[in-house]
Amino acid sequence: MSTLLQSYVQGRWHTAPDEGTPLLSAVDSHEVARISSTGVDVPGMIDYARSVGGPALAKLTFHERAAALKALALTLMAGKDEFYALSAATGATPRDSAVDIDGGFGTLLSYASKARRELPNDTVCLDGDLEQLGKKGTFLGQHIYTSRRGVAVQINAFNFPVWGFLEKLAPAFIAGVPSIVKPASQSAYLTELVFRRIIESGLLPEGSVQLLCGSARGVLDHLGGQDSVAFTGSAETAATLRAHPNVVGAGVHFNAEADSLNASILGTDVTPDSEEFALFVKQLVTEMTVKAGQKCTAIRRAFVPESLVDDVIAAAGARLDKVVVGAPGVEGVTMGALAGIDQRNEVLESLRALTKSARIVHGDPDRVEVVGADASTGAFLSPILLCCDDRDAHEPHEVEAFGPVSTIIGYRDNADVIELVARGKGSLVASLVTGDTAIAREIVLGLAPYHGRVLVLNRDNARESTGHGSPLPVLVHGGPGRAGGGEELGGIRGVLHHMQRTAVQGTPNVLTAVGQRWVPGADRTEGVVHPFRKNLAELTLGDTIVGGPRKVTIADIEHFAEFTGDTFYAHTDAEAAAANPLFGGIVAHGYLVVSLAAGLFVDPAPGPVLANFGVDHLRFLTPVKAEDELTVTLTAKQITPRNSADYGEVRWDAVVSNQNGDAVATYDVLTLVAKSSGEQR
Amino acid sequence: MSTLLQSYVQGRWHTAPDEGTPLLSAVDSHEVARISSTGVDVPGMIDYARSVGGPALAKLTFHERAAALKALALTLMAGKDEFYALSAATGATPRDSAVDIDGGFGTLLSYASKARRELPNDTVCLDGDLEQLGKKGTFLGQHIYTSRRGVAVQINAFNFPVWGFLEKLAPAFIAGVPSIVKPASQSAYLTELVFRRIIESGLLPEGSVQLLCGSARGVLDHLGGQDSVAFTGSAETAATLRAHPNVVGAGVHFNAEADSLNASILGTDVTPDSEEFALFVKQLVTEMTVKAGQKCTAIRRAFVPESLVDDVIAAAGARLDKVVVGAPGVEGVTMGALAGIDQRNEVLESLRALTKSARIVHGDPDRVEVVGADASTGAFLSPILLCCDDRDAHEPHEVEAFGPVSTIIGYRDNADVIELVARGKGSLVASLVTGDTAIAREIVLGLAPYHGRVLVLNRDNARESTGHGSPLPVLVHGGPGRAGGGEELGGIRGVLHHMQRTAVQGTPNVLTAVGQRWVPGADRTEGVVHPFRKNLAELTLGDTIVGGPRKVTIADIEHFAEFTGDTFYAHTDAEAAAANPLFGGIVAHGYLVVSLAAGLFVDPAPGPVLANFGVDHLRFLTPVKAEDELTVTLTAKQITPRNSADYGEVRWDAVVSNQNGDAVATYDVLTLVAKSSGEQR
Repeated sequence: MSTLLQSYVQGRWHTAPDEGTPLLSAVDSHEVARISSTGVDVPGMIDYARSVGGPALAKLTFHERAAALKALALTLMAGKDEFYALSAATGATPRDSAVDIDGGFGTLLSYASKARRELPNDTVCLDGDLEQLGKKGTFLGQHIYTSRRGVAVQINAFNFPVWGFLEKLAPAFIAGVPSIVKPASQSAYLTELVFRRIIESGLLPEGSVQLLCGSARGVLDHLGGQDSVAFTGSAETAATLRAHPNVVGAGVHFNAEADSLNASILGTDVTPDSEEFALFVKQLVTEMTVKAGQKCTAIRRAFVPESLVDDVIAAAGARLDKVVVGAPGVEGVTMGALAGIDQRNEVLESLRALTKSARIVHGDPDRVEVVGADASTGAFLSPILLCCDDRDAHEPHEVEAFGPVSTIIGYRDNADVIELVARGKGSLVASLVTGDTAIAREIVLGLAPYHGRVLVLNRDNARESTGHGSPLPVLVHGGPGRAGGGEELGGIRGVLHHMQRTAVQGTPNVLTAVGQRWVPGADRTEGVVHPFRKNLAELTLGDTIVGGPRKVTIADIEHFAEFTGDTFYAHTDAEAAAANPLFGGIVAHGYLVVSLAAGLFVDPAPGPVLANFGVDHLRFLTPVKAEDELTVTLTAKQITPRNSADYGEVRWDAVVSNQNGDAVATYDVLTLVAKSSGEQR
Repeated sequence: MSTLLQSYVQGRWHTAPDEGTPLLSAVDSHEVARISSTGVDVPGMIDYARSVGGPALAKLTFHERAAALKALALTLMAGKDEFYALSAATGATPRDSAVDIDGGFGTLLSYASKARRELPNDTVCLDGDLEQLGKKGTFLGQHIYTSRRGVAVQINAFNFPVWGFLEKLAPAFIAGVPSIVKPASQSAYLTELVFRRIIESGLLPEGSVQLLCGSARGVLDHLGGQDSVAFTGSAETAATLRAHPNVVGAGVHFNAEADSLNASILGTDVTPDSEEFALFVKQLVTEMTVKAGQKCTAIRRAFVPESLVDDVIAAAGARLDKVVVGAPGVEGVTMGALAGIDQRNEVLESLRALTKSARIVHGDPDRVEVVGADASTGAFLSPILLCCDDRDAHEPHEVEAFGPVSTIIGYRDNADVIELVARGKGSLVASLVTGDTAIAREIVLGLAPYHGRVLVLNRDNARESTGHGSPLPVLVHGGPGRAGGGEELGGIRGVLHHMQRTAVQGTPNVLTAVGQRWVPGADRTEGVVHPFRKNLAELTLGDTIVGGPRKVTIADIEHFAEFTGDTFYAHTDAEAAAANPLFGGIVAHGYLVVSLAAGLFVDPAPGPVLANFGVDHLRFLTPVKAEDELTVTLTAKQITPRNSADYGEVRWDAVVSNQNGDAVATYDVLTLVAKSSGEQR
């Protein structure tokens, strides 16, 4: 008997007391492993996640969680050969496995990088700008995101046993929410192996991840308003889960990615001899054959201008002729097996429905030549291309054959194809091959309300394009309607789906304390020590230096114009400047104002402040005239130590005022500051 | 017989053929109106919204929609007296009516203002930054939001017949999605009157708003993945609607705001003689009596340090003694009626459940003194304050009496109150009264995962505070779990809930065409005419001016240091600068670089460019050393005409490069540019 897969429950590996159900190889039906969740204490897992995993994650900042994910990805990558070896049993070719395995680890790295660059080194993050709620500035609002106090249950599909769970786990982990991973049984042996290496690495906090091999039946009964379920799979199962009383009534957050009738469109500008034509055909065949078409993002409908239907059939047929079906890893094989005999039977059933309104133009559902394996024991299938000539047929827009199957459909013009694509009632992705930007704008905006992702391909980006079927960690993955109505990934967007957005109202001091970002109106501390002389450990939000006043003379303005070459009339021509509706006379250059302000706040001697690396949100609010006297107030606004360097970033609030107390310019100054006095010179 | 309310269906007023159901005054049970939806063609309304309203809205930009909403608000405000007069029949005092009527019109104005300031003058809006998807820059991603192609069905509660429908309508309208408004029958006569004035104004496009008076039964049967339902009401009804097959299976977007057990907390730092103590008690009594406590945001649980429970009971009781219950508008009356006799009976039933574990410390459910009305025919109730001494009781955290009823509960410390509040399983809002910022941070972050809004009140913001119970258009309104799991308002956030987010992948030229924002790598046009000489109508995305090179000398750097006073050592001290880990020698000031760059791109003579009003995202990427030669490339990036002015905003992409082609600084320059040559001088 093969190995019985284990679950990882409440910090230890659990072995079911029964024999479990056999999991068969897609290639030759040999028994790869057995699976059973008998004896798994599901409520115990949920409690453990909430009481151990959540608090452990809450002790780490976003940056610390990112560092853990990065270390994990590097560890897993170093040992990826065993994952590739086992992956072949799922029917995946090495190219397919790369999408799953390297794609999964790449997603961890992408999240680690995004979190370090786009989130604060804290456990709370701010959303949007301050909202002034009263005229006097004592009452303001700031939206914040905090981690939910529950568990993220992740129910994955069989087709990507590695990427599928990591793309859900990574954003939850960054968000500080513990995960319970539930792989699809079919390919759970690969998930279990990767998960085992994760636990062995010891890199993730106790309780932050658990694994449930086998049935997850009843898990929703134990979830509430702080918990979430992320599901990838069929639209039917998604609907069943979404109707659970705890989703409907108790506020369990439910996110679904369902298979959808994704479209690819050949633009009306494309001619058969053009590069774009070849790109369209090549992408279509690639999407039919990668993972043997078992991708929720694969092209199911290929829309082609009516006049080009025959050309596309011929060109696609010629490419499909070269596809070699067979055992993964065998020389020359370009397409592997479906996940199992059951999956193949389902595809054949869908195919029967599709052929009610479409004709097969390439491939034979009943016959496939197989290299390096036995067609009678492996789940092999020939790629099948159909063409539907009936404009009113509904099957091509409704029936998904989850395998190497696509249907060509003719269309008339941009409006027509937008309407035809919409008949799919919402998809994960669509692609458009065109060299015409006007066509791109019209079709993209027409498709967008029905899609989570739209790719426009042409000769200019073909070499860099990651392709129709590839979700990317930095872009949202999901789609409305039939596609499940969910959204995953998208960089930090995917993290925020695990957090609660809350509007906080309070005084500037309260909002500063809550968000750890100094708010105008909050206390300022003007000490004896210039804040540029404080290292990151010494600096406190609200530390302030006030510089000035400095008078701006007409000579300053004239000199600055001459020196910089910026002789714009408002600085140099009194008569013309007087006629300007906004100035009414000579004004100082905005760049002069901020340059002088720097002269007023900078502490010149070497110290912990290493560099000014930027300026944000600079606004010139009041014109500065000759003889105006400028004062600058610079206040420590946000302090972000870097975990991987001996310095960090300090954002300073800068306000330049004139002699009347009017703000003439406001902006943020960005500096790098050493962490400790050891870095000072 | 009273008037039968009409529905506004497919562009005309519909009168039901039957007599309808009588709607009785809350104050004296006289018949105010009758209501019936008999004969309303609900599928026809939905089709009309999709086929007439949606396309009409799609022709308007966000700014044009904003202008329509602003004009509408001003029109409605000018005639608000009739709304106030009718509002009294709902039991609302003038103060209550102000919250509903002025609050509703204020929400329209807020949305008009936010849309003009925060959205482009277009029908698409961008989400987040560009994502570089390949190293060569030919393949990038940009998230966009487009309007859903469906209808927003709005099912409102009885307590805010004006604000309730406008706060849902405004963000949908700005988003370009047509609305079907379904008021609660109880107070539908006021909604119908305001709606009538809206239609009479002619300010909103045909089909963009329709009104359904009476039952909306079956409306969900006709909705799909591009449609949404926004519901305000009880948690039970929300759960029923959310279980509808079209929500569960067809992707209808469902947003609920449900009544919740909102908490107010008195901080442990507060003493009975302090201002904060008085503020807490005053706010509690206000929330109990405004709208007779019929607000989904009202305080149901008042958490008080155990040692202060008796003090709070005494102080609240003294304030409650001064409440005068009676007919709205009658001299001295401070609290009106509940919405009707049925509502009062429901409150009394909930009260019976609450008194299982709490004692009444103020008020008598069976007796109320009423001024200016007859207690036997009006839906009057005394405000009732309870106190629960049983720490394990569940009723105070579960049972909501939707009227002038609150329960005081003692707590021990910050962790204790965070846990007690969480027993409410998610609320719309919590408030905390404290003068201590550390307590504020701990409790706010503890409450946030369970709340859509948290208010921190103290003596510093009391005068400006809008109060625990007031949702604001610029802050999100909604809450997780028991509160319905929804989110409304929040400024543009509320608009985006009606739009689909889509990741678009393509070349820089394609992304420029789709998003109407020039993308680095897209075509640049260097013409004979300097782009500063083009008005808004003449300027095109990609119009470019290249200036330079200009050599930066050591004399320039020394002079700039002296002139501005910015003598930071990296610009002035060769030895110290050489030791700086980032520079390794004297570098030019960042402000010198951008000042010189302006000298290279500015066209000095008077023309359509009126002013530089700001700079965004300035980053210094490569240090500039003496003898470096700078070139600047300035490209028109985004063009935003203002509808209400003869100029608009132009955002320019600026890149300063050195002689090696390395970018030394990148930023956006913001200018005001005249619309036409008439404005040129």
